[in-house]
Amino acid sequence: MSPPSTAMPTSPHLIADSQSDPATSAVIDAVIDAALHQLNHRSREKLGDRYRRLRRQSLVIAEPLSPEDCCVQAMPDASPVKWHLAHTTWFFETFLLERFESGFKPFHPQFRMLFNSYYEGVGERFPRPQRGMLTRPALAEVLAYREQVDQRMLLLIDALDANGASTSAVAAGGGDAQPQLAQFLSLLELGMQHEQQHQELMLTDIKMLLSLNPLQPAYQPLPESVPLDDPAELALQWHRIEAGVVEIGHAGPGFCFDNETPRHRQFVEAYQCASRLVNNAEYLDFIQAGGYQDPSLWLAEGWDWKEQLALRHPLYWRRDAQGQWSEFTEYGVQALQPHRAAVHLSYYEADAYARWAGARLLTEAEWEHAAAHLQGGGREFFGVAWQWTSSSYAPYPGFVAAAGAVGEYNGKFMVNQYVLRGSSSATPLNHARLSYRNFFPATARWQVSGIRLARQG
Amino acid sequence: MSPPSTAMPTSPHLIADSQSDPATSAVIDAVIDAALHQLNHRSREKLGDRYRRLRRQSLVIAEPLSPEDCCVQAMPDASPVKWHLAHTTWFFETFLLERFESGFKPFHPQFRMLFNSYYEGVGERFPRPQRGMLTRPALAEVLAYREQVDQRMLLLIDALDANGASTSAVAAGGGDAQPQLAQFLSLLELGMQHEQQHQELMLTDIKMLLSLNPLQPAYQPLPESVPLDDPAELALQWHRIEAGVVEIGHAGPGFCFDNETPRHRQFVEAYQCASRLVNNAEYLDFIQAGGYQDPSLWLAEGWDWKEQLALRHPLYWRRDAQGQWSEFTEYGVQALQPHRAAVHLSYYEADAYARWAGARLLTEAEWEHAAAHLQGGGREFFGVAWQWTSSSYAPYPGFVAAAGAVGEYNGKFMVNQYVLRGSSSATPLNHARLSYRNFFPATARWQVSGIRLARQG
Amino acid sequence: MSPPSTAMPTSPHLIADSQSDPATSAVIDAVIDAALHQLNHRSREKLGDRYRRLRRQSLVIAEPLSPEDCCVQAMPDASPVKWHLAHTTWFFETFLLERFESGFKPFHPQFRMLFNSYYEGVGERFPRPQRGMLTRPALAEVLAYREQVDQRMLLLIDALDANGASTSAVAAGGGDAQPQLAQFLSLLELGMQHEQQHQELMLTDIKMLLSLNPLQPAYQPLPESVPLDDPAELALQWHRIEAGVVEIGHAGPGFCFDNETPRHRQFVEAYQCASRLVNNAEYLDFIQAGGYQDPSLWLAEGWDWKEQLALRHPLYWRRDAQGQWSEFTEYGVQALQPHRAAVHLSYYEADAYARWAGARLLTEAEWEHAAAHLQGGGREFFGVAWQWTSSSYAPYPGFVAAAGAVGEYNGKFMVNQYVLRGSSSATPLNHARLSYRNFFPATARWQVSGIRLARQG
Amino acid sequence: MSPPSTAMPTSPHLIADSQSDPATSAVIDAVIDAALHQLNHRSREKLGDRYRRLRRQSLVIAEPLSPEDCCVQAMPDASPVKWHLAHTTWFFETFLLERFESGFKPFHPQFRMLFNSYYEGVGERFPRPQRGMLTRPALAEVLAYREQVDQRMLLLIDALDANGASTSAVAAGGGDAQPQLAQFLSLLELGMQHEQQHQELMLTDIKMLLSLNPLQPAYQPLPESVPLDDPAELALQWHRIEAGVVEIGHAGPGFCFDNETPRHRQFVEAYQCASRLVNNAEYLDFIQAGGYQDPSLWLAEGWDWKEQLALRHPLYWRRDAQGQWSEFTEYGVQALQPHRAAVHLSYYEADAYARWAGARLLTEAEWEHAAAHLQGGGREFFGVAWQWTSSSYAPYPGFVAAAGAVGEYNGKFMVNQYVLRGSSSATPLNHARLSYRNFFPATARWQVSGIRLARQG
Repeated sequence: MSPPSTAMPTSPHLIADSQSDPATSAVIDAVIDAALHQLNHRSREKLGDRYRRLRRQSLVIAEPLSPEDCCVQAMPDASPVKWHLAHTTWFFETFLLERFESGFKPFHPQFRMLFNSYYEGVGERFPRPQRGMLTRPALAEVLAYREQVDQRMLLLIDALDANGASTSAVAAGGGDAQPQLAQFLSLLELGMQHEQQHQELMLTDIKMLLSLNPLQPAYQPLPESVPLDDPAELALQWHRIEAGVVEIGHAGPGFCFDNETPRHRQFVEAYQCASRLVNNAEYLDFIQAGGYQDPSLWLAEGWDWKEQLALRHPLYWRRDAQGQWSEFTEYGVQALQPHRAAVHLSYYEADAYARWAGARLLTEAEWEHAAAHLQGGGREFFGVAWQWTSSSYAPYPGFVAAAGAVGEYNGKFMVNQYVLRGSSSATPLNHARLSYRNFFPATARWQVSGIRLARQG
Repeated sequence: MSPPSTAMPTSPHLIADSQSDPATSAVIDAVIDAALHQLNHRSREKLGDRYRRLRRQSLVIAEPLSPEDCCVQAMPDASPVKWHLAHTTWFFETFLLERFESGFKPFHPQFRMLFNSYYEGVGERFPRPQRGMLTRPALAEVLAYREQVDQRMLLLIDALDANGASTSAVAAGGGDAQPQLAQFLSLLELGMQHEQQHQELMLTDIKMLLSLNPLQPAYQPLPESVPLDDPAELALQWHRIEAGVVEIGHAGPGFCFDNETPRHRQFVEAYQCASRLVNNAEYLDFIQAGGYQDPSLWLAEGWDWKEQLALRHPLYWRRDAQGQWSEFTEYGVQALQPHRAAVHLSYYEADAYARWAGARLLTEAEWEHAAAHLQGGGREFFGVAWQWTSSSYAPYPGFVAAAGAVGEYNGKFMVNQYVLRGSSSATPLNHARLSYRNFFPATARWQVSGIRLARQG
Repeated sequence: MSPPSTAMPTSPHLIADSQSDPATSAVIDAVIDAALHQLNHRSREKLGDRYRRLRRQSLVIAEPLSPEDCCVQAMPDASPVKWHLAHTTWFFETFLLERFESGFKPFHPQFRMLFNSYYEGVGERFPRPQRGMLTRPALAEVLAYREQVDQRMLLLIDALDANGASTSAVAAGGGDAQPQLAQFLSLLELGMQHEQQHQELMLTDIKMLLSLNPLQPAYQPLPESVPLDDPAELALQWHRIEAGVVEIGHAGPGFCFDNETPRHRQFVEAYQCASRLVNNAEYLDFIQAGGYQDPSLWLAEGWDWKEQLALRHPLYWRRDAQGQWSEFTEYGVQALQPHRAAVHLSYYEADAYARWAGARLLTEAEWEHAAAHLQGGGREFFGVAWQWTSSSYAPYPGFVAAAGAVGEYNGKFMVNQYVLRGSSSATPLNHARLSYRNFFPATARWQVSGIRLARQG
Repeated sequence: MSPPSTAMPTSPHLIADSQSDPATSAVIDAVIDAALHQLNHRSREKLGDRYRRLRRQSLVIAEPLSPEDCCVQAMPDASPVKWHLAHTTWFFETFLLERFESGFKPFHPQFRMLFNSYYEGVGERFPRPQRGMLTRPALAEVLAYREQVDQRMLLLIDALDANGASTSAVAAGGGDAQPQLAQFLSLLELGMQHEQQHQELMLTDIKMLLSLNPLQPAYQPLPESVPLDDPAELALQWHRIEAGVVEIGHAGPGFCFDNETPRHRQFVEAYQCASRLVNNAEYLDFIQAGGYQDPSLWLAEGWDWKEQLALRHPLYWRRDAQGQWSEFTEYGVQALQPHRAAVHLSYYEADAYARWAGARLLTEAEWEHAAAHLQGGGREFFGVAWQWTSSSYAPYPGFVAAAGAVGEYNGKFMVNQYVLRGSSSATPLNHARLSYRNFFPATARWQVSGIRLARQG
């Protein structure tokens, strides 16, 4: 019999227009069981390696960037890369070192405030729209911060790996060892999941920043071997799914955030689900058919928003004087690739396209059910772009907000946001799962977000 | 076997921050069947009487008001009473007289633009936030407009009543008579439903306007015989409902709007439903317990909104220098009545109160199921205040937007709004039903909106 | 030897974006000398007649308007006509009746707050942008308010006229009679000047309101006998004025506001002054020459403002589909009259036109000097349109703000406003003078404001 | 007989809320005479040295800053230091190298757009509020840009120095040599004056940026030898100046901007002028006397602005929990120095303080006349802080805007700005003069601006 699903607080760094972040001490109890499960089933000696690899990945992402690139904030919803690098480190320092390290001393007394994104639980907080003003500490100092915290973290982790079941090296105060071990492990897991979320945001935030520069700099050079387009892509097909009661939400022993629980039943009427995402050629058809000029295709609120900003195409598309379309990508400006998925779309654009195409978006229950049960779902549903669903972000039935600071989190963003499912080309490997609920306001465009169509069965 | 449910376009006058309105020629086909059903089952000789009575009711609402009261627009989301009076008349003139009256001539050529609330279907439109600038036409002229249109409408209706199955008096051009009759009847039904929606808005809009006046004028004198409060109100009880697949949406032959269709299945986990709405005494407890100062109780977006507006109590509550609470009502300022339902609450306030009370709001499926099946549901669920649900306003599975102008309507507002169920003290009699879906943004407070609590089963 | 000039506080009702108003008890002392002067030189028996005639003029202005017209506020800078009618009455009630009438009782206890436009001196104040919300009191009640206050005022004035030097009827408390008489007379003068200022605003505010109505209603019918245009208008001529020290500011015994004092010296280099205002034909040339599209003609701030509002012509000009120009006037929409002065222009437009014409605006010293010394200046400089000068509104050298509430006034608006000189077609007769300083922000267009050109001598 | 004054376009980098900048090709003719004058009177062999020293000074200013510090834009009115460094270089490249260098090739083709601040004359322009987004080019690349342009400039200048009257090395195309020489020299002078203006802005912009950082970093370490305060400062004295006609504006052969011309006459009534600026102790008295809470002291517009931003003290003052005042300076946070001039004040604050002190601000004519004629004026009037005058920024009588692109400049900002006179501690040596007219909107606080009082004579 499988252990119960482990609920962790909703990912805050995926929240565009707020300043919250997951995890506080109250999280600890909630994740103990899952951590213990992992302790038993994952070979402990690899924990340090996993931590090293994951932390190094953030540096790999920042590698092509200058200190200036890492410092500037492209817009209030985005954060500077330097801030991401420091904030994820702050998490380990605050929630692990401060609790489990003997003789803990902070790296810098003011970093607690500068790199905190929490509401109240952990003290004062620097205002999010001002993050780009932090030219100090310099990037070099933030890298030193990471280095030092990692060394101290690895002392704890390696001792744990070395001593196996013995928790003496972990628990600063001794005493009831096993719960402390579990607590440490669960917070460590949370910190790593948290950093992965920020890794995706680093990529989308820096893309936004570079796109604002008239020089249109590439984040990295175009690799010679990898083709940009994939002309072999199959024609769009419709999978039909029968009506019935389905189970939705996280199942099994692995990690999940609390908004994925509890697993529960929903009735889904028969529907059809597209076999792939809408591609650039198809989205261009929509544009050329006057899709951005026809109010009957748009939600009223979306139409007003689009008109006010005079939008006529996806965020990173450009059209030159000769009418040729190109797209700003991580490789700089590239000709529009017709078979690649159309991305960086708002909910309003996704909804309008679907209406134009005589279709609609999936609900999140439909999405999860299809992804779970269609053959080859794993390949088709993940790794290209987050997929807007028509479901507003709301608690699952039976969802209960935890007491304390963590209660600040769980329901906090469940209004006027829409759920995206799957994962994108910017999502770290091993960070996607069937029940993952990403969410953004209907106006968000800077994430790698696309369209999977549905229609009634 | 019961005839199919009849879908009409979503009520537009219940849409706070937009300018749309229901019904265009495309509606016609959609409602023919229902109209024919009514033609057969309702005694036709009463149609003229019903029209007269319903139209007169709008004048009864405007009766206590001066021409100045009727002209001013309290805020962009509201409309002047004079505009409501003219717009509902414009509906009959445009969609019935213009189509069915021989030798039709408009009352005034520019009223088509002044009192149109549609997007594109019916030509130019006067901007909603400017409606209060229309000091001309004067109220007297609008009343004359109503009078003339009513006389012409009644000529058509009375002929219909007199001639029974004969449609010669109705169909201007003759020919295929029965469809024309059905069309006329269905548009007439729609026009009357439409006017009833505006009757509720007239009451809430004028209340808002009078509340802004430091003289705090009463809309009408306090009736001596009716007690303001009802101390006999029972204690709040919890009804438990079992989990299962339920059917939701309009059923049966009567009128409904299209957003109430199609009737479909949903799975509802076991839940409990409060026997009555939260009352003023209970809401005051929330205030006095510091509910408006505790961010952990609020949705993040609601907290920011509330802080920016410095809200500390419901819209019409006032607190005097001695700390005594009163409420601005249709009878002027009255002492707060502890047993009356707390009303004029935003979604954010309703949600925060529920969290404080250790409960939550109902989903709309839970609401509809409970109201349909609990004993005495009809008494308890209607006529006091609209009840916020936690359901965002979204299409039912299988909902298909009609082609043409009506397609402008159906899905148009289904984003960033929340569904309210039931009906309020301002809702016209016979305008409420189990499947009715009212909807407003989470910030709306000027409607008669309250709280019914739920909790997990 | 001439008596000293009498300073009264700056006219507040000419202040577009604020809520202040002249006169408080502190004014009293400042105007005593002037009042005594008038007492001696004006035949006292006509005072009641003058008061009656002047007060009646406000009703004449409101005569063509419905209660609805009088209630609505066209924009935050404007006030409803009903408010003007009540506020000018409030002035007499508050500053004269309350001080000089035995057994004074206010007409309505809350009118003090509703119709007060002062900062602090006279208690609470109703926010200016909300004035249009005051559907109560009704226009009829405001007219009754005027009627009652006038009767009571005339009791005092007529007693004064009848008794001559005796002040017993005036001074409620007896005692030092002559100062009280002077005080009464000076406040009476101020109240009447104040009402005249509001009479001009009533005309400009109602014009703005009617212009917003798609019906484009006329304020009054076009008189048959009066030609709209005056083709006999002479060609523009340039008057040359020599350099020298000139005296500027109010001189002589008559009434003036304090911003017109002290009379002082300025050095004016030689300049030329246009003999008449720029007319519609000339301004149309500017438009047709692309004046609104050429940034080199505009102040940078004016260009940005104009672009944001997409302005392409004066406030009340309209251009039909055939390219014909018309103008919304008090007589409704009329064909553009080429020889009439171009009016309803902002400072930015006046400045841009002058630059395009190879000229500039006058400074206020140049204007006053030219108007005083050119033959026929009186005819040419007054009664058509206020004339923008290039002078920012600033204190004259030696201007000293009075102590107390009146000190709230004098310098209060002397920043980011520009002085207009002369008077307009909407200015009451006998309300214009050489030293009068009107002032508005550079964006103001709803006043009757035009252009008189200058160039270097 | 002295040569005529040389008018150059108004300093653009002193313009806070616009994006313009001085000098275009049209400037050339305007400054030829002055340049020739300088050619004759300044020893030519020092020109290269002067250029080197002046350009090096910009690098000295940037020296204490990291690449991140140089990249970020503190607010829309400010520019990043990197942008200043590039823009001043762009000036020399565009207006000198491009015209006078044989075989000119731009350093980078897109820098023309990125670092252009002109309206139209020189092509496309990057929007000012986005300047902080330019993480590319990196600071290092901008420094290389400076280095290369300087080498090329010095080739031209050194050849000129070496060859004396011979212009063959300067004039690319030969021909009429003397005018080309003059043109080169005048543009060189303009470019150096322009860079000096930006040097002051670099200091004020970086101060603003560092002040926003909670770490409150010092721009440079506090020098041990220099005392922060100067307790020996004398008591404030009043200098009395007689009434009379005075001459105002630039006189003599040196460089000036065109807004300082023509020299002209003004009549000044007798007045008194304070011997020094208001100091921190005096300004603190104003604060502690409730100056920020008393509306009677403030211009109405200033009061509203201050209330909206909740301002209670100068921009860089801080008050700790114990009530101790400190000030953020270039040396980090320092205890408030009572005898230092109060700086970083808006016009509104300066005006309110003066009113509270029973005084007023000087007009710019009064200021210039006093500075020119008071003994020791040079010491007292310059080098501490710019001094707000009560004069709005307006053209001098006879000021004529030049034709062409330069005409875009001259009058362009002469509205809703106030003139500051003198110079500040951030002004480069040799960049101040009696007739210099600095100007900013009444809200500007980030410049080193203070208060010199005046009162009537």
